[in-house]
Formats: sequence, structure tokens, C-alpha cells
Amino acid sequence: MSGADILQRLTKALERRKSASPEGSYVAGLYAGGPDAILKKVGEEASETLLAAKDGDKLQIVKETADLWFHCLVMLSYYGLTADDVLQELQRREGVSGLAEKAARKKAKP
Amino acid sequence: MSGADILQRLTKALERRKSASPEGSYVAGLYAGGPDAILKKVGEEASETLLAAKDGDKLQIVKETADLWFHCLVMLSYYGLTADDVLQELQRREGVSGLAEKAARKKAKP
Amino acid sequence: MSGADILQRLTKALERRKSASPEGSYVAGLYAGGPDAILKKVGEEASETLLAAKDGDKLQIVKETADLWFHCLVMLSYYGLTADDVLQELQRREGVSGLAEKAARKKAKP
Amino acid sequence: MSGADILQRLTKALERRKSASPEGSYVAGLYAGGPDAILKKVGEEASETLLAAKDGDKLQIVKETADLWFHCLVMLSYYGLTADDVLQELQRREGVSGLAEKAARKKAKP
Repeated sequence: MSGADILQRLTKALERRKSASPEGSYVAGLYAGGPDAILKKVGEEASETLLAAKDGDKLQIVKETADLWFHCLVMLSYYGLTADDVLQELQRREGVSGLAEKAARKKAKP
Repeated sequence: MSGADILQRLTKALERRKSASPEGSYVAGLYAGGPDAILKKVGEEASETLLAAKDGDKLQIVKETADLWFHCLVMLSYYGLTADDVLQELQRREGVSGLAEKAARKKAKP
Repeated sequence: MSGADILQRLTKALERRKSASPEGSYVAGLYAGGPDAILKKVGEEASETLLAAKDGDKLQIVKETADLWFHCLVMLSYYGLTADDVLQELQRREGVSGLAEKAARKKAKP
Repeated sequence: MSGADILQRLTKALERRKSASPEGSYVAGLYAGGPDAILKKVGEEASETLLAAKDGDKLQIVKETADLWFHCLVMLSYYGLTADDVLQELQRREGVSGLAEKAARKKAKP
């Protein structure tokens, strides 16, 4: 799948933006705004994803989920994390399935 | 990157769960609950991601983002969409950057 | 308590804004944007309330909760509902308490 | 309006629950769970309010908004705040209206 590497390319691009001017780059502006600026966007895009999904508007669901994941990537990058860390966590859980999986995730939470 | 294919494998696994019994599978239970059951989980996990990020707890940020993305995959699957659709949307935006990118996304919204 | 009537006064003020020009009034602009414009704000302000609370910043918690409740009032008004409807619902639940209350609310949900 | 005092009565009831056993009281259980337990509920109920509103289901909108406001009261109480603090903030803003109001709120944010 050609899209497979996009998360890695975006991760690298986000890393480069850390040294960019906040005036010239949307992402550098978010970094400059600190965690709250980034997290507000994550919260906003999550709400907008719900609204698009309730409309059953497939194109809009894709766009809003892309917005949500993109701002998650910015958040991960801000905290020194990457998409790979999340994908590896999903991989770790892959063997576990059904209710066993749910139970495992419940336990994993504090 | 070994994690690259996990989104595709999960997408296929989610597809198979559509014919599973809601009693024996967490995901089949979500499908059976309809869009609201799935979307409540997306909303919940987004909130929990914000809380983990505010704590600056890296391990928890990874776990909560994995939870969020996982339930996004369930949502996408419910609406006949896949992770690939989202990755391709991110790829389309890849060329666009900085404030131009932001402006483009703003315009794309209704 | 002097603040007791503010919800009623705001409810009436919001009703009057329904006939105002979207250009001259923030609230009329929200009404003109339809449910999604209003609901995005409810979602945003909820996220910002969480962020303020995690900071333990009392002044900011009050401001963000006020923003959240205000946009709930706009939402209620949009759907032909009022703060009174919500307060009366809270009053109906008042007798029920402890775990019994929780159980009752769980059952009340679909 | 008879419902006017319910916020004050609930505020007092929540205060009393602070010394109750977490086993016997839903609210005491939330207090015992700390801020994250309370804030997760605020986030959850906000999402459920959006979903109910998108369905245009008036009864459900009232119930979910009541859930949201109730858990906001628990949050306020946890941080030593009350509904009155929020109502007074709404009152302070009452004179300001239209776009001037929006501008004022924007500036008030960090």
C-alpha cells in the first residue's frame, strides 16, 4: 500500500518544523502555542469527526479523521513520540482479541 | 518499519468481526451497538488522550492514542471506510505546507 | 443568590438573537451556521474545560465552564429547549442518590 | 422558576458526599477516583450530548445536557468551586453582546 509510509514521512516533516518560524508554518505555530494549543485541536477534530460520522458523510469522515490523526501526530511529536510508537502498541495488542482484548485494555488503564 | 502494516491487518481483522457474535467479541459488540456505541468510544478515548497528554505521561499517551486510533478504525470500518482512505487523504495534503496547508484545510471545511 | 436568574435572562436574550443579523451578533452567527457550528463550539469548550481543570487553574476552570454552559444554552435554544428543561431534569433526579442514582441513569440510556 | 435553586441544592449535596464512602455513593466514588475519573465523565457526557443533538432527539438532549452539567458540578466541587462561580461569570459577561462579546472572550483566553 502506497500510503503506508505517509505516517513516517509526516513524522519526519513534523520534526523539521520544530525549528521553523511560527509565522510561516501552521505546525510551528502549534508547537509555539504549547501543549494546550495542540490538545485543543485534537479535541476539536475529535468532535468534528463525531459530527461528520453522525451525518454518515463518508468524504467528510475521511477528512475529519485525517485532521484528527494529523493533530495526534503533532501531539506525539511534541512529546518526543512518533506514529511508530502507537503502531507498535497496536501490534502488541494484535494477538489479543474479543472480550479478552477488552479485559486486557481495561486492566492496562490506571 | 515493522508496524507499517498493522493498520491494514487491523482493518482486515475488523472486517472479519462484522460476522462475529456480539457476545464473544468486543468489536462485534460495538458494531451491534451501532454508530453511537462506536462514536461514544471515539469521544471517550479522545478525552483520555488529552488527560494523558496533560500529565506528560509518555507511556499513557501512546496507550490512549492507540485506543483512539483503534476506535477510529472501528468507526471507519462501520462506515465502509479504511485506514488507507485516511492515509491517502494525508498523502494528498503532504505537498501543501505551512499556512497554505492551514488555509487549504479551512477552505475544505463547510 | 443573585446569579440564579442569569440562566433565564440568557435564555430570553438568546431567543431574541434568533431574529438578529448574523453579521452583528456572535450568537446569531452560530444560529446561522446551523447545528454543527454550535455543536463544534460545545465540543471545543468541553475540551478546553478539561485542559483548564488539569492545570488546576480555578479562574480558567470557571471561565471555560461558563463558555461550555453558554454554548449549551445556545444549543438548547437552537432545538427549542431551555435551561429550565435541564434544571427540571436535574430536579427529577434529585431524590435518587448514590449508586441507585447511577444505576437509574445507566438504565435510562439506550 | 422552581428549578432555579436546584444548582445550589446539588452543590450542597455534592459537598456532603465528600465525606461519604466511595462504595455507597456514585459521586463519592468519582471524588475518590480523582480529577481524571471526573474529567473523563465530563468528556464522555459532552460527546453524548453532541450525539443526542445530531439525532435532534429533544428528550435525549435534555438528559445528556443534565448529565454534562451534573458532572461539571462534581468537577467544580472537586476544585473548591460552585455553580454560583460559573453563573456569576455568565452574569459579568451579560452586558457584553454580539461580536464585542466574542472579541472579549477571545482576548480573555491565554
